[in-house]
Amino acid sequence: MSSRVTIKDVIITPVAFHDMPLLNAVGVHEPFALRSIVEIVTSQDGIYGLGESYGDSTHLSRMEKAAQKIIGLGAHDTNAIYQAVVESLPTDTSTGGDGMAGMVTTASAADKVFSPFEVACLDIQGKLAGVPVCDLLGGRVRDNVQYSAYLFYKWGGHPGQADDTYGPALDPEGIVKQAQRIIGDYGFKAIKLKGGVFPPAQEVEAIKTLAQSFPGVPLRLDPNAAWTVETSKWVAKELEGLVEYLEDPAPEIEGMAAVAKEAKMPLATNMAVVAFSHLPASILQDAVQVVLSDHHFWGGLRKSQILAGICATWGMRLSMHSNSHLGISLAAMTHLASATLNLDYACDTHWPWKRPDEDVIVDGALRWADGGVVVPNAAGLGVELDREKLAQLHKLYLECGLKKRDDTTYMRKFQPEFDPTCPRW
Amino acid sequence: MSSRVTIKDVIITPVAFHDMPLLNAVGVHEPFALRSIVEIVTSQDGIYGLGESYGDSTHLSRMEKAAQKIIGLGAHDTNAIYQAVVESLPTDTSTGGDGMAGMVTTASAADKVFSPFEVACLDIQGKLAGVPVCDLLGGRVRDNVQYSAYLFYKWGGHPGQADDTYGPALDPEGIVKQAQRIIGDYGFKAIKLKGGVFPPAQEVEAIKTLAQSFPGVPLRLDPNAAWTVETSKWVAKELEGLVEYLEDPAPEIEGMAAVAKEAKMPLATNMAVVAFSHLPASILQDAVQVVLSDHHFWGGLRKSQILAGICATWGMRLSMHSNSHLGISLAAMTHLASATLNLDYACDTHWPWKRPDEDVIVDGALRWADGGVVVPNAAGLGVELDREKLAQLHKLYLECGLKKRDDTTYMRKFQPEFDPTCPRW
Ligand SMILES: [Mg+2]
Ligand SMILES: [Mg+2]
Repeated sequence: MSSRVTIKDVIITPVAFHDMPLLNAVGVHEPFALRSIVEIVTSQDGIYGLGESYGDSTHLSRMEKAAQKIIGLGAHDTNAIYQAVVESLPTDTSTGGDGMAGMVTTASAADKVFSPFEVACLDIQGKLAGVPVCDLLGGRVRDNVQYSAYLFYKWGGHPGQADDTYGPALDPEGIVKQAQRIIGDYGFKAIKLKGGVFPPAQEVEAIKTLAQSFPGVPLRLDPNAAWTVETSKWVAKELEGLVEYLEDPAPEIEGMAAVAKEAKMPLATNMAVVAFSHLPASILQDAVQVVLSDHHFWGGLRKSQILAGICATWGMRLSMHSNSHLGISLAAMTHLASATLNLDYACDTHWPWKRPDEDVIVDGALRWADGGVVVPNAAGLGVELDREKLAQLHKLYLECGLKKRDDTTYMRKFQPEFDPTCPRW
Repeated sequence: MSSRVTIKDVIITPVAFHDMPLLNAVGVHEPFALRSIVEIVTSQDGIYGLGESYGDSTHLSRMEKAAQKIIGLGAHDTNAIYQAVVESLPTDTSTGGDGMAGMVTTASAADKVFSPFEVACLDIQGKLAGVPVCDLLGGRVRDNVQYSAYLFYKWGGHPGQADDTYGPALDPEGIVKQAQRIIGDYGFKAIKLKGGVFPPAQEVEAIKTLAQSFPGVPLRLDPNAAWTVETSKWVAKELEGLVEYLEDPAPEIEGMAAVAKEAKMPLATNMAVVAFSHLPASILQDAVQVVLSDHHFWGGLRKSQILAGICATWGMRLSMHSNSHLGISLAAMTHLASATLNLDYACDTHWPWKRPDEDVIVDGALRWADGGVVVPNAAGLGVELDREKLAQLHKLYLECGLKKRDDTTYMRKFQPEFDPTCPRW
């Protein structure tokens, strides 16, 4: 007979950490990014599990409601936990709460709320079994999970503050300089540029300049659906042979499908297809050829592997989306990608934009090498909570006054006429 | 750091056990059914895992080749094991080997060979972690996995032998009598009739008689694609409101799609869609509304859960197919169904057709109650190898002289003019 380890408590701590003024189609990153840290305490002494998710107040309150319903369930009973999460939501009529500034709005709330609980349970299961989380997912097929250099147009620093260590990037030259810095620091072997900020011609120019400066390095451009179908087709033609995929050029499945008919490169998305319910329509229209997985909104690591199975079955490829995140998410992303054969594009990460000293985990667990993260060998996720650091970032959350991510309102403080409506060009 | 448990040896033992003269569209069951028992021995003292699969010689030799390639791999590294299986197959040009008498021919050979290795590894992982296999699959959502009463037209006994304990069932009355016996023994709450044996009108009559004799009990009829599309449409009309699904009335995805256009009940299949590669075309045509999972050819328990995810995403339902099998398979089927929310039809099993004293596992691990199997709580699959019984059934394999399942040749011994060509009616 097995001993049944149950969930004794769920502690959800909102945290904030410094962020830089990174520009996108709907505005600019605020001085602080919000996250929630989920700690599941078990009936077995000393065994706890960690998860990380969005920090928006709407999402926090959904998680709190669900947390009450999962206490007492088994740490292996993720099916039952999912059902409990679903049951906790029907009375919920709030919208948003995804920490993505309105850029992803139709992901499944249940999948988002469930995700950090599932990750924490897998952390627990791994610790109990003495194996890393990747071993609970079929075992690693790669020892080093590659990430991409995620470039952003940005201001030199937040208005009224001194320039940050990256300084400004507002033209192709600034972007190349930023790429050199980030690739110098991390050794990334793929580059993604967040677009949708300047007129498409300038962003096309930035990609062409990157292609010249980093010959052979796979490139991606992601304007977050800031372009019309016609503009997207023009960009696709301009970037033929230059990008490994074009990410979310136009809005919705229909827009993507229309662009895909003419674009020579694969189209990728983390906006048009962000839930299982979107897949049938997208596949019917061959709207996207690369799905950007993200365990935070695809329902955790195992459901992300179901997504991977769907992509394999229908001949789509798989990459990974990122939001501003801390070390628990990086560990989970790394375990997932290490154990998912067809998740073979370099994954996106906002990691370089975070201050190195700001996190909630004990230093040294995650090692960067050669453009990627070395898959941890320790049991579970392989990261431990640094409670002092957690307290510091929670204090920052309380002090910063932010309760949700709102890139648009922050942008309008400096450009009152800013209009986030997309498509814009 | 986790301790890495590796595969030290793989022992594949073909076994035979007595079977009854069960009739189907391609012939009649031979006096013995063949299976293979897979034992994976690990680097950790006393820890081994069990799998069960087809016993045809072609499949055995594929498994033997693959077994050589997985020795030394980690018991958690099922992704790597799958790759090793795939690499062991390219030189393989043999056909068949599925133990299904030609009724399933296009399942993925890699998925079939991989399956018993995966199940054995999950058995090991469960034992190492001290949790039942269902806990490695998200945890049980039901404590008792329901099975169906699987009825067969049959001869009284094998020609030249005395009648078996079931006796003949060659008309609707015989089928009802058989149902009463099996339901009396097991308490099943759903009934499946294997058809394709007599002209459709007689089998329709059998279903109608069952409906009268067992009011309210869900019924299914499966002629193994013995009917044309036109005949299938006629049967579907006759059985409207009487069956919960109609299984493989007509051949191929195209045939099923044509029937589905008119049939009021869902169509189920374990013939038209038996591999992930078949799903896109089937879904495009809405050919089947219920997929009969079978971890033996869908690539093990985790890939069966990917199938479940696909069914959930596209609004198909899920049931489970069975071949003649022993206790290891029954344990694996039970763990899978217990941990897969939408596998909620009663599963098929040939269990009642096996002699109670013939198996390879230690008695008492699997308890039947209330029409189902109580999900085992012990670590791993919850079944242990009885090496004496294994030796006995291996001896039976050597003595019986069968090397593959061939219902047609056996039938022709008694009815030389028997023609297995389908559709027949
Ligand atoms: Mg994106
Ligand atoms: Mg069938």
